[in-house]
Amino acid sequence: MNMSRTRRERLVVIGGDAAGMSAASQARRLKGPDELEIVAFERGHFTSYSACGIPYWVGGDVTDRDRLVARTPEEHRARDIDVRLRTEVTELDLDGRRVRARDLDSGAESWTPYDKLVIATGARPVRPDLPGADAPGVHGVQTLDDGQALLDTLAGTRGRRAVVVGAGYIGVEMAEALLNRGYEVTVVNRGSEPMSTLDPDMGRLVHEAMTGLGITMVNDAEVTKILTGDDGRVRAVATQDREFPADVVVLGIGVRPETALARAAGLPLGTHGGLLTDRSMRVRGREDVWAGGDCVEVLDLVSGQERHIALGTHANKHGQVIGTNVGGGYATFPGVVGTAVSKVCDLEIARTGLREKDARRVGLRFVAVTIESTSRAGYYPNASPMTVKMLAELRTGRLLGVQIVGREGAGKRVDIAAVALTAGMTAEQMTTLDLGYAPPFSPVWDPVLVAARKAAAKVRSSTTP
Amino acid sequence: MNMSRTRRERLVVIGGDAAGMSAASQARRLKGPDELEIVAFERGHFTSYSACGIPYWVGGDVTDRDRLVARTPEEHRARDIDVRLRTEVTELDLDGRRVRARDLDSGAESWTPYDKLVIATGARPVRPDLPGADAPGVHGVQTLDDGQALLDTLAGTRGRRAVVVGAGYIGVEMAEALLNRGYEVTVVNRGSEPMSTLDPDMGRLVHEAMTGLGITMVNDAEVTKILTGDDGRVRAVATQDREFPADVVVLGIGVRPETALARAAGLPLGTHGGLLTDRSMRVRGREDVWAGGDCVEVLDLVSGQERHIALGTHANKHGQVIGTNVGGGYATFPGVVGTAVSKVCDLEIARTGLREKDARRVGLRFVAVTIESTSRAGYYPNASPMTVKMLAELRTGRLLGVQIVGREGAGKRVDIAAVALTAGMTAEQMTTLDLGYAPPFSPVWDPVLVAARKAAAKVRSSTTP
Repeated sequence: MNMSRTRRERLVVIGGDAAGMSAASQARRLKGPDELEIVAFERGHFTSYSACGIPYWVGGDVTDRDRLVARTPEEHRARDIDVRLRTEVTELDLDGRRVRARDLDSGAESWTPYDKLVIATGARPVRPDLPGADAPGVHGVQTLDDGQALLDTLAGTRGRRAVVVGAGYIGVEMAEALLNRGYEVTVVNRGSEPMSTLDPDMGRLVHEAMTGLGITMVNDAEVTKILTGDDGRVRAVATQDREFPADVVVLGIGVRPETALARAAGLPLGTHGGLLTDRSMRVRGREDVWAGGDCVEVLDLVSGQERHIALGTHANKHGQVIGTNVGGGYATFPGVVGTAVSKVCDLEIARTGLREKDARRVGLRFVAVTIESTSRAGYYPNASPMTVKMLAELRTGRLLGVQIVGREGAGKRVDIAAVALTAGMTAEQMTTLDLGYAPPFSPVWDPVLVAARKAAAKVRSSTTP
Repeated sequence: MNMSRTRRERLVVIGGDAAGMSAASQARRLKGPDELEIVAFERGHFTSYSACGIPYWVGGDVTDRDRLVARTPEEHRARDIDVRLRTEVTELDLDGRRVRARDLDSGAESWTPYDKLVIATGARPVRPDLPGADAPGVHGVQTLDDGQALLDTLAGTRGRRAVVVGAGYIGVEMAEALLNRGYEVTVVNRGSEPMSTLDPDMGRLVHEAMTGLGITMVNDAEVTKILTGDDGRVRAVATQDREFPADVVVLGIGVRPETALARAAGLPLGTHGGLLTDRSMRVRGREDVWAGGDCVEVLDLVSGQERHIALGTHANKHGQVIGTNVGGGYATFPGVVGTAVSKVCDLEIARTGLREKDARRVGLRFVAVTIESTSRAGYYPNASPMTVKMLAELRTGRLLGVQIVGREGAGKRVDIAAVALTAGMTAEQMTTLDLGYAPPFSPVWDPVLVAARKAAAKVRSSTTP
């Protein structure tokens, strides 16, 4: 059989959420079905949904699960993307350019050849290897299926005591969600303060605010066992020295790249277990394999090293870049600066760039300053307090990171620092940034400018040789 | 008499508001009273107050005038700054290094020598040269004294019809203030749409929203006369073809640099009538004279030309820079990108960089795109619509300007573009900015990223040779 020049190519996508389906959709925009066949395998029931929205669905802010779905399988199929749900890819044959997939309902397996492959297998939640971790009433919140299972448990449970294990983004967002559902919430946290993506002094502010909301915060606590009752359901979470009664337990310990398939196929993985790609999101050393979303490592533009960040906004950008390249265009993903924003009730938490320990780890010396200011002019109604911490490199004065804890108007201010980090600005340069000012929006010196002034002064006055 | 090397120098500051008193305070921080004497002349009753806060005081959001005063004359005097209120400088003798000042209460005049001079004479509101413009009931809102006079009028007036002349920042903010006070508000505007600091298509959105708030918007209207009643008080505002009954009239037409003194002394003025300074805020060609705040022109970093912007945040930065340099340190003000943010009730309006006509005027060709998005993830409660317009240069793709009209969460997003403009980023570079994302804060593609994607695509697809 001759390979005709007009032979239709086949793109196979593994993973039907943000990165995978963004890639498929963008490739479809650039190449019609007569040029490119697109097959997408998804082991769950849903495509293109907002995993980041699950806490708000569980908490009741979002009442309809379907609202979290940006594009259904049917909508993808209407665009000639062959979505195969409940179908898990079990093996990659890179030399043979084919993937083996299993229909999870029938158990049937078959091979599907590809010309181009996109790996978007996402991340899997860390599940502690503990007795009882799989008991009824213990839930992760990684997928829509997880969220539905948790909501079913909440609906069927009379007790009102919830224990959240982990105090990162998922942990604090789930604490809010369960508080909104009327639960007594205890957060059990291994670290010295919640939100280990912040420095501990800023995490302390989160701790205090969460306590103020009526959440019981337990720090420096290692979960040793999940205790079950006679009915086999969870009844408590045990740490090294205490027991916390629980009618429901949510695990929010973090996620790891889901790269078992890639590892088995010999694809290059980084130190965090994620796939390594080039700037075009092509897997390093491969011509015809791309990867994006929660299963890859990304370049941290501040530290110059790879890191793993599971976040929908990156996954969407990766998918866009991959789809453009697969579709014959040109696009790149240069990297991240590590921006994240979250909230617990009215507390807003944001960070970008390096924490103190990140900077030390990569050999950067720095000054750190912390300032207090307000979201609006001090005399304007509802001006709320805000704490801004800023790190700048010694000698160069280059911005290294910003952390913000405050109320309304605090969180998205981190974007100022995110752009400044991307541009490689110094704290001194930031002091004269022309930021939006009017009394309802900012003090006459925006809190970020106040931090920049203090950081720049500290860089200047440093006597480190 | 020998000039001792330890002779105390004298700094004279003309103007006791943001720029002047920031300069005085910063100079004092660096040099004690044994090294530097500081004399500040202010013709009004107040120092260091927020003129930007006046609309919110008039509107009742701020109940106490004193809250608008950041630092009183007494507080400045406690820091050894000799503040002389109700004292107007009437002449500069630059060769003799002295200023003549008149005590406005006694009428006494005297000369004060200086070693260093700071000119911070601010701006004066444009008052139309019209019959009736000085009638009782017609008010500007430039100074605290103006604000108090307006409040006195409101308290003494039974009628509830207010006409605001001008639909720029002051105009729309005063419309909100008078609405909050229970007035029927008519805004008479010379331009085709309100907010001429936006392009007309974006101004149109402001127009519609203000109409929706119950404000009567009259565009393309030139005020020809202010009509007074038998009592001599204002009774109506007349345009070329109509009359608008008015119990109170607020003039918010704009301001011009107050540089009569500087002009008489032969100091260099720009095309907008403002003083021209170098990067250290020293008046060009002068060794010992600095100027800052609303009386100077500033370099627009996007257009490369000088412009005049009366805004407290710039005045404070100028003062900080001047005070540092006068005090023997080193600081510069590199320029502005033209960021401004404002609100009318819950409508937020923001802009930075160049409008279409600004770009054309300086010879820049560009693409312009407009997108609609939301402040939060679409499924999250209170996600509010937002319109973002972006201009990017043809060929280079360099960001030229952004305008945003929306509700809560819209205004301060302009800071993303302000930093990107300062850094000289292209729209394409902006598409991968790592901005804060979580459903309560942003859609997975921040509205600014959506605009950047569309602008970048339009730059790429342009066929202009």
